[in-house]
Amino acid sequence: RFDRKIVLELPQRVARRKILDVHVRKIPLADDVDLDEIASLTIGFSGADLRNLANEAALHAVKEERKKVCMTDFDFAHDKVRMGAQRTDILNPQERRRIAVHESGHAAVAHYLPNTDPVHQVSIIPRGQALGMTEQLPEEDRHNYPEAYLKSRMAIMLGGRCAEQLVFGDVSTGAADDLKNCTELAKRMVAIWGMSEKLGPVHYHIGDEHPFLGYELAQEKDFSEQTATLIDEEVRRLVEEANLLAKSTLEQHRDKLEALTERLLKDETLDHDAVVEVLG
Amino acid sequence: RFDRKIVLELPQRVARRKILDVHVRKIPLADDVDLDEIASLTIGFSGADLRNLANEAALHAVKEERKKVCMTDFDFAHDKVRMGAQRTDILNPQERRRIAVHESGHAAVAHYLPNTDPVHQVSIIPRGQALGMTEQLPEEDRHNYPEAYLKSRMAIMLGGRCAEQLVFGDVSTGAADDLKNCTELAKRMVAIWGMSEKLGPVHYHIGDEHPFLGYELAQEKDFSEQTATLIDEEVRRLVEEANLLAKSTLEQHRDKLEALTERLLKDETLDHDAVVEVLG
Amino acid sequence: RFDRKIVLELPQRVARRKILDVHVRKIPLADDVDLDEIASLTIGFSGADLRNLANEAALHAVKEERKKVCMTDFDFAHDKVRMGAQRTDILNPQERRRIAVHESGHAAVAHYLPNTDPVHQVSIIPRGQALGMTEQLPEEDRHNYPEAYLKSRMAIMLGGRCAEQLVFGDVSTGAADDLKNCTELAKRMVAIWGMSEKLGPVHYHIGDEHPFLGYELAQEKDFSEQTATLIDEEVRRLVEEANLLAKSTLEQHRDKLEALTERLLKDETLDHDAVVEVLG
Amino acid sequence: RFDRKIVLELPQRVARRKILDVHVRKIPLADDVDLDEIASLTIGFSGADLRNLANEAALHAVKEERKKVCMTDFDFAHDKVRMGAQRTDILNPQERRRIAVHESGHAAVAHYLPNTDPVHQVSIIPRGQALGMTEQLPEEDRHNYPEAYLKSRMAIMLGGRCAEQLVFGDVSTGAADDLKNCTELAKRMVAIWGMSEKLGPVHYHIGDEHPFLGYELAQEKDFSEQTATLIDEEVRRLVEEANLLAKSTLEQHRDKLEALTERLLKDETLDHDAVVEVLG
Amino acid sequence: RFDRKIVLELPQRVARRKILDVHVRKIPLADDVDLDEIASLTIGFSGADLRNLANEAALHAVKEERKKVCMTDFDFAHDKVRMGAQRTDILNPQERRRIAVHESGHAAVAHYLPNTDPVHQVSIIPRGQALGMTEQLPEEDRHNYPEAYLKSRMAIMLGGRCAEQLVFGDVSTGAADDLKNCTELAKRMVAIWGMSEKLGPVHYHIGDEHPFLGYELAQEKDFSEQTATLIDEEVRRLVEEANLLAKSTLEQHRDKLEALTERLLKDETLDHDAVVEVLG
Amino acid sequence: RFDRKIVLELPQRVARRKILDVHVRKIPLADDVDLDEIASLTIGFSGADLRNLANEAALHAVKEERKKVCMTDFDFAHDKVRMGAQRTDILNPQERRRIAVHESGHAAVAHYLPNTDPVHQVSIIPRGQALGMTEQLPEEDRHNYPEAYLKSRMAIMLGGRCAEQLVFGDVSTGAADDLKNCTELAKRMVAIWGMSEKLGPVHYHIGDEHPFLGYELAQEKDFSEQTATLIDEEVRRLVEEANLLAKSTLEQHRDKLEALTERLLKDETLDHDAVVEVLG
Repeated sequence: RFDRKIVLELPQRVARRKILDVHVRKIPLADDVDLDEIASLTIGFSGADLRNLANEAALHAVKEERKKVCMTDFDFAHDKVRMGAQRTDILNPQERRRIAVHESGHAAVAHYLPNTDPVHQVSIIPRGQALGMTEQLPEEDRHNYPEAYLKSRMAIMLGGRCAEQLVFGDVSTGAADDLKNCTELAKRMVAIWGMSEKLGPVHYHIGDEHPFLGYELAQEKDFSEQTATLIDEEVRRLVEEANLLAKSTLEQHRDKLEALTERLLKDETLDHDAVVEVLG
Repeated sequence: RFDRKIVLELPQRVARRKILDVHVRKIPLADDVDLDEIASLTIGFSGADLRNLANEAALHAVKEERKKVCMTDFDFAHDKVRMGAQRTDILNPQERRRIAVHESGHAAVAHYLPNTDPVHQVSIIPRGQALGMTEQLPEEDRHNYPEAYLKSRMAIMLGGRCAEQLVFGDVSTGAADDLKNCTELAKRMVAIWGMSEKLGPVHYHIGDEHPFLGYELAQEKDFSEQTATLIDEEVRRLVEEANLLAKSTLEQHRDKLEALTERLLKDETLDHDAVVEVLG
Repeated sequence: RFDRKIVLELPQRVARRKILDVHVRKIPLADDVDLDEIASLTIGFSGADLRNLANEAALHAVKEERKKVCMTDFDFAHDKVRMGAQRTDILNPQERRRIAVHESGHAAVAHYLPNTDPVHQVSIIPRGQALGMTEQLPEEDRHNYPEAYLKSRMAIMLGGRCAEQLVFGDVSTGAADDLKNCTELAKRMVAIWGMSEKLGPVHYHIGDEHPFLGYELAQEKDFSEQTATLIDEEVRRLVEEANLLAKSTLEQHRDKLEALTERLLKDETLDHDAVVEVLG
Repeated sequence: RFDRKIVLELPQRVARRKILDVHVRKIPLADDVDLDEIASLTIGFSGADLRNLANEAALHAVKEERKKVCMTDFDFAHDKVRMGAQRTDILNPQERRRIAVHESGHAAVAHYLPNTDPVHQVSIIPRGQALGMTEQLPEEDRHNYPEAYLKSRMAIMLGGRCAEQLVFGDVSTGAADDLKNCTELAKRMVAIWGMSEKLGPVHYHIGDEHPFLGYELAQEKDFSEQTATLIDEEVRRLVEEANLLAKSTLEQHRDKLEALTERLLKDETLDHDAVVEVLG
Repeated sequence: RFDRKIVLELPQRVARRKILDVHVRKIPLADDVDLDEIASLTIGFSGADLRNLANEAALHAVKEERKKVCMTDFDFAHDKVRMGAQRTDILNPQERRRIAVHESGHAAVAHYLPNTDPVHQVSIIPRGQALGMTEQLPEEDRHNYPEAYLKSRMAIMLGGRCAEQLVFGDVSTGAADDLKNCTELAKRMVAIWGMSEKLGPVHYHIGDEHPFLGYELAQEKDFSEQTATLIDEEVRRLVEEANLLAKSTLEQHRDKLEALTERLLKDETLDHDAVVEVLG
Repeated sequence: RFDRKIVLELPQRVARRKILDVHVRKIPLADDVDLDEIASLTIGFSGADLRNLANEAALHAVKEERKKVCMTDFDFAHDKVRMGAQRTDILNPQERRRIAVHESGHAAVAHYLPNTDPVHQVSIIPRGQALGMTEQLPEEDRHNYPEAYLKSRMAIMLGGRCAEQLVFGDVSTGAADDLKNCTELAKRMVAIWGMSEKLGPVHYHIGDEHPFLGYELAQEKDFSEQTATLIDEEVRRLVEEANLLAKSTLEQHRDKLEALTERLLKDETLDHDAVVEVLG
């Protein structure tokens, strides 16, 4: 059996169309709205993202005093949902530079490593919970992730922190989420997908977040301390390898990393073409 | 005492007939409907599957504007329940090929190993939660599983992943469920059925999923860390042995594996006879 | 103080009479019904069994269109409660033979070992949850169990599995409950009755099943890992010793084991006298 | 501070009088009832015992058709509460002899060891949950227990089992409660009263039974595994020492032990004077 | 930041005055009642003690048939609350002597060690839950406890048990609460106040009693087994050191300890001056 | 992605303005009130602090019999919320001196170490829960904390306790909260921000306080004992290093530390300029 549950557990195109259908039921749509196209363009959106998309589009139409929601409203909503609302925090120059370096690190590793999704956008404008963001988007829905893809992904996650280390000589608290996501991915590789030779193609129950409480319930581990030690060592090994990969990639392209940082400080947001222009 | 609770804990023929009786009580049946025959043909169906079968048959009859549900409706429902509703995901050629290789791996191991149930169908049409499936069906209800049968079963579960490794040189996230089921089976062999010499004919309480919450409740393990380590080592040994068995089986029949993959890519779904025709 | 709580925690004769009194209060009894005799004959019945006995007797009387429940009804109910309702599963010859071997193993070990209760009946007719059963009944209520009795009992529990191993060369999933019961008994010997010299006459809290939920609640173990390891080793030793005892007993009487198997396949159910006739 | 909470946590004389006052409020008392005397005579009664005493006295008066409850009723109730209602189980001669040996063991150890309370009664008449009982009563309320008293007490608890071992060459399941109580006492000596030199005058939280649920709630142990191991070893040492003490005491007085057994088999219940007469 | 939460977490003078204000709101006070003075004199009272104080004073005034509560009532209530209601238990001479020795031990260690609060009263009259008590009171509210003070305090707690050991050659169950409090203090020194060099100025979460349930909730320890072992060893070391300190102090003043015991047996309660008179 | 969640998880300027808007909705504001300025000046305030600020300003206006709340009221409230209400505890000279030494230690370490926020105020006037306090304020909102800043911060936290050790030769219970906060910070550095080389850029789940219950819920640790030991060792190392840093800083400026203590004992509260004047 070939399981469809994947890393990000996101709905695929067909599912997205169905979810959209539900959320636009009470919204008067203009004739130009093509739900199939919207479903195609919302790769990487979760169910909640799609509900927000419909709501934001409707709100925008009201604001623009239109009686029907048209494609322009969906375009606006698409940006807002994907990136969060813009914030007006004033960052001092040192902090702003650190963020630019951090995001350039993510983008550069994503650009130079093989087996990665293209960089869609890099930005140092604070939005939602984030002070900056680097966005990758696959060209089409992914149903399955080979090991090589996952290893590149881990290196990209650590790229921001590596760039800080390279440029400033130390790291900061800003990489907490990157570390958490990277560790989570390494754990799944080891415990769920059998990608550690030491632990073999065996499934180890590592628990899921409780959907409501936001943290795991107390669960009896279903393996021994010896196995727990092996899992930790393998997770540590995978993360260290990804870290070294990110580091060597950035050292090799140090000048390009700095060029991207300067461009980001100047333009604040770069699209795919701008990133490619700078990084080559 | 010879316990009737078995691996899959599925109802046997007589029980299936009784379950069907309950679910068709409010359904007007045509004269050609033979519930005994349906019970005989639904080997491997759970209680929930049988309820779905009745519902789907009734829905199909309504769709066809018949006043009574006839045997044709049950035939249609049988397919839908057994395999899930077809999905319209568009997979790219690489993903489609990987799925074909994966399913061919399951099928080939099932075909060449002794002590196995016959391959009923192989398919790479996405249905329900799965992107592909390989289905085995025993010729009659099983009440008891000898050790040799269980070992072959584990190798079949790992056959999909082994085929990916053999053909592409790496594995992917698609085998998560296979690994989980195979590990679960190995654990039961070691802890419930006394099939590890190191641990002896002793029962070790390894916990069941909570039926409602979907995960185990916090339970005090009833054995020591030393025993937990032994269990983990034995589970790992059994899974590794099954993996080697699957691997050597596929290496020995590499050309047939590829033939089956090509046939699957062409026909998408193969029945028992087609599989036998390709694999010999 | 000499504690009355015993292995099976079943009501004794006097208690059974009182329980019967409660359950027949609303049942019209014929003059030939002797509740004292029924209480005497229901050794090994739990409180729930006695309630079922009364209900089944009443149902049988209704079926037979009698206005009062007479002793014949209780005789019928006695069989049904003790053994479960007969099932109509059709087992294939291999499975049927394996069950016959398994039950013969239980019966032969019970027959040849000292300090055991007599074999009351052996059967390979599927009833209730079981595909076969071997029933022992003490000649009178037991209030206390010496160590020698418990060791024989463990060997009898493993006798079915040993017979399978001896005859077919492998074991199957059918012995799961035997292993569980045998392990449970060994644990009590070690932790509750002080029957391991290594652990001494010390009580170790090993937890009880929660009466309602059917599994143990999370409880802090009240002993150290070192003690847990000792308990596991001693339990494993006791079970292994019982296994060897069962095995050597069956090897010594291999021809009788096979004779009993053939007789069972022919007659399906054997009473005490038939078993003695075959086994000598 | 000198803490009043003691081993058995029973109410003392003054407290017993107060508890009696509460429970006789609605009972018409005859003039001869002296509650102070009853309080003096009920050493070892718990609060629940005292409530039962009042209820049983009232029930007895009703049975005897008296309008007021008199001292005779309290005498009757006193026996019933202290020993439980008599049962009419018929034990076979072997079981009856084992119980007599077991109870004689308790009584003989209690008689010959120093620092013990006098034997009040020994009986092999089944009452309440017990098949036999040996009762000790202090001459006056105890407020404090020196170490020597506790060590003798543990030996008395194990005396029944030792006698079985001595006379029959094996032990039985009947000593389960003795082992549990003896272990519990050893644990308190080690963890609560600082009576192990290895662990020092340190308090270790070993948990109490939850008053309502009847078992301990899951609690984080407040000490390390190393300490848990030390506690287990010290508990085991104390229990083994008590066992050796009981054993050597009984071996030294083997003839008296057997004399007491025979007398018990003859008379079924022996009071203090009869025990002293036999044991010297 | 200099934290105000202290060992006993008791309200200071100003807080006591405010608590008193709340509890006397509905009590008619005579003119001689000076709440400021009462607040000054109730060092060591908890909030609950102060509420009891107000209630007991009011009850006493009613008993004395006064319409207003006067200072005399507060004096009476002060004694009752501080020491508990007197009990009328009759202790035998051995128990009474053991208690006198135990309390003399507390008092003597408190008297001879430096960095201690003065002994306010010693008594062997049973009150509340205690059979005897030794009371120390600081001359003014303490806001902060240096390490030297805490070490003396631990020795005082163990002084009662040491005196028993010295005089009777063994210990008893009466010191359970002393051990518990002493262990609790040692744990806080090690885990909360950084007073162990081995563990450094690090905070270790050792859990608090649940205010309502009276015991700790199941909490995941936030440190490793290695650290737990270190904490246990350091706690054991601190308690042993305090025990040796108490022991050597009492051995050095053995004659005074016995003089205090005799005086206590004669007078039952000694105030500060009497203690000083005996101990010098 | 550059995460905005930071050490203290406090709202930034823009967020503070929005929170203020909510809390002043029902308060009549005078024309001189500039909410933007208040938002700018309340760096380091939590959401709860801002609600208190609004409430205290309103209460102050009522007290001053003004009909509208003006900027003066907010100034008063600002002080009260930031520092807590003043208390009138009378501390004895020794305790007062110890607090002065403790706070001088915090202030001196904060002053002499690089990568720190400026000292805003030092005080030995008891307020709220604290007997003294040293307050640092950043010049502008911080969005991100480099490693060097965190290490200085830990040393400042331990500076109070180090000063006590230096001046009095021992420590006291007053540093409990400092130790707790410092340990918490070290743990996050090791487990959340990847700042230990031994543990690498891996995320370890160390649990959060439950917002409502005030303590952590029972959670299964998601790492092995070996990892837990490593984390403990690294946390201990970081805290010890911070302790040595604080100690050497204070030893180097011993005379200034004492000068600051004397000035504090004289003036009780010192602002930034006064601290700089003394420390140079």
